[in-house]
Amino acid sequence: MAELGRRARAAARQVALAKVDDKNAALRAMAACIRARADAILAANAEDLADAKAKGQSGAFIDRLVLNPDRLESIAEAVESIAALPDPVGRVLARFERPNGLVIERVATPLGVIGVIFESRPNVTADAGALCLKAGNAAILRAGSESFRTSLAIAEAMGEGLERAGLPRDAIRLVPTRDRAAVGAMLSGLDGHLDVIVPRGGKSLVARVQEEARVPVFAHLEGLNHVYVHAGADLEMAKGIVLNAKMRRTGVCGAAETLLVDRACADTHLRPLISMLLNAGCAVRGDEAVQAVDPRVTPAIEDDWCTEYLDAVISARVVDGIEAAIAHIEAYGSHHTDSIVTDDEAAAERFLAEVDSAIVLHNASTQFADGGEFGFGAEIGIATGRMHARGPVGVEQLTSFKYRIRGAGQTRP
Amino acid sequence: MAELGRRARAAARQVALAKVDDKNAALRAMAACIRARADAILAANAEDLADAKAKGQSGAFIDRLVLNPDRLESIAEAVESIAALPDPVGRVLARFERPNGLVIERVATPLGVIGVIFESRPNVTADAGALCLKAGNAAILRAGSESFRTSLAIAEAMGEGLERAGLPRDAIRLVPTRDRAAVGAMLSGLDGHLDVIVPRGGKSLVARVQEEARVPVFAHLEGLNHVYVHAGADLEMAKGIVLNAKMRRTGVCGAAETLLVDRACADTHLRPLISMLLNAGCAVRGDEAVQAVDPRVTPAIEDDWCTEYLDAVISARVVDGIEAAIAHIEAYGSHHTDSIVTDDEAAAERFLAEVDSAIVLHNASTQFADGGEFGFGAEIGIATGRMHARGPVGVEQLTSFKYRIRGAGQTRP
Repeated sequence: MAELGRRARAAARQVALAKVDDKNAALRAMAACIRARADAILAANAEDLADAKAKGQSGAFIDRLVLNPDRLESIAEAVESIAALPDPVGRVLARFERPNGLVIERVATPLGVIGVIFESRPNVTADAGALCLKAGNAAILRAGSESFRTSLAIAEAMGEGLERAGLPRDAIRLVPTRDRAAVGAMLSGLDGHLDVIVPRGGKSLVARVQEEARVPVFAHLEGLNHVYVHAGADLEMAKGIVLNAKMRRTGVCGAAETLLVDRACADTHLRPLISMLLNAGCAVRGDEAVQAVDPRVTPAIEDDWCTEYLDAVISARVVDGIEAAIAHIEAYGSHHTDSIVTDDEAAAERFLAEVDSAIVLHNASTQFADGGEFGFGAEIGIATGRMHARGPVGVEQLTSFKYRIRGAGQTRP
Repeated sequence: MAELGRRARAAARQVALAKVDDKNAALRAMAACIRARADAILAANAEDLADAKAKGQSGAFIDRLVLNPDRLESIAEAVESIAALPDPVGRVLARFERPNGLVIERVATPLGVIGVIFESRPNVTADAGALCLKAGNAAILRAGSESFRTSLAIAEAMGEGLERAGLPRDAIRLVPTRDRAAVGAMLSGLDGHLDVIVPRGGKSLVARVQEEARVPVFAHLEGLNHVYVHAGADLEMAKGIVLNAKMRRTGVCGAAETLLVDRACADTHLRPLISMLLNAGCAVRGDEAVQAVDPRVTPAIEDDWCTEYLDAVISARVVDGIEAAIAHIEAYGSHHTDSIVTDDEAAAERFLAEVDSAIVLHNASTQFADGGEFGFGAEIGIATGRMHARGPVGVEQLTSFKYRIRGAGQTRP
């Protein structure tokens, strides 16, 4: 593993200075190699699937793992879409001229070597590798053992693409072993050769990484997201947003998990919202006020306010005004994505200002929490921490910066 | 300590939402209280000094610790200058409208609770506390035991200023004990109540913090800075920059520690540069080529290329071209501040692009590595890492951001 780190560090220096045309050529070559190696990749995936089924993995797990020609094509297209993004390296983020004539520029630079630890989705191998390369970084990817063969086959294609463009294969490497000790080595920083770790997976993985990592982490915590229907909410708009936020896709981190309805509009809004959810096939766990509007509502216990269901289930309660709504979100939320529905501009501005989440919305669905919806192109995840990256982590968030100062012989008095 | 963390977290929420006028009123009140309590602060400083002298501390150490009415006045003025800075919170860092009509803004927010661990300079209590507050953060300050009484007296004044402006005293707290276990508690993150740690002090302190911290660190490593005199350098400009970079102040982190002279101009430039340094009272440790131009030069050993002298000493060597110069800087430097002197624009652009340091300069002294010189106002230090903050850490670098999205009922297809 230490050798893997040393090689990645050397490769990072090369890709940091690579021309954008070379990076893009490599990305397009990777996509071509993924298509050319489709049979080998799908065969490897079949082996992974057989093992997973033998181990009695859940249907949801199998669904995350399985590849087919369509999914493989969309993986290749995702890599090409990253080639189409503007170069995040070298952007001038700020420029100021000082009274002494010095011209100071803050310029985007790569971060260095990025470690990505993920579980069953093999597409992460391509997405993460491509995003890191586009931002001028080297990537060390650790696949879950269940998707190991598939990820290795995809990584081979990525490496071939790098080589074709004259970039070092070491710029994107999959940890070539299932040995769990490799994760420990990454968390310890590979002798200083790993600059940041991005965990992509379930709560337990993220928790372990945050607990043990000796290097910075772009933590993607759960999305315990809220929709708050304020007293000033238009009922029809509220129904559209709540239904979409919860039910469009229940398994994504941007899905709503808790509905807060203001007591001031409960008489008119609560029953229609709850009935709509129930009729759409969503289980509702509510407080007494919510239980009172429909017999199909089951009682919510304290745990429900802290649970990311990722399923057709929602917790719901009536709150006494915006202060109580914000207090609930700050107490139980995961600072990921929260939305207020209201026609009251002052209430909306207060919610947007006081809710301390990566993404706060007014009159829009929480399911917009996605790098693509932000126009970032692909994303490596959605960061819920406050350091360096927050919200969707796209190519720009995979860069750092430095100061470039141009003078004419200035010395400091 | 855990209680200190809980209180800081609660205070952070209040100051995060405080109006800029209230933050500025508190800062001005702090300055007034520092002036009003001058006698008590200077008396506390006299006690710290007596202990330090009894312990036989060095003159440089005593000089960092000692306060007098002038130094105290400049501490108060520094706090007032932070009140005069624009509010870093709420700045709209980016704004884009999506095809679906959503308006997305990236808005600056506070970081949360910032821990500052420092050594003998008691002014850090005022500077760091004021900078953190201006950026809407709470601060937990750990003073070196030698400056403990002085720092406590200054912190009292800061707390009184907060109270006068109606802000919580817990927004700026000095760890009220000399117990070294308190540092360990901070490094462990105070049960999640500490969001980032800023070490201000010597190599050993920074090393310990980076080794043990379980929370992000804005590391201020040593400033092992280089001036590279390129073949295309104007000799007079090179002399001015080298003399200023090394000798203006030898104890600051922006001071140059190594001089690299290109072999292509060594015949004309080396002797004048070395003689100038020696005549200015600077000891020169050089390679054979440098030793050859003046008998007062002593031989440089490998260690000299890795040593931050912080004194009137410089290491010097002749390099074979810009490639060798950049290779030397990447191998031995600390990625802090490096400068090239040349009239060759292409060489300058290559140096600015390829040297991976927080600050890279062309035809200017490395001693401009300072937040004030950047126009940032005060700084809490100069970060040499690549995560979140890099270079001078002023109020803007003490903020994070979030995404504020305004819609009209949009749902995601």
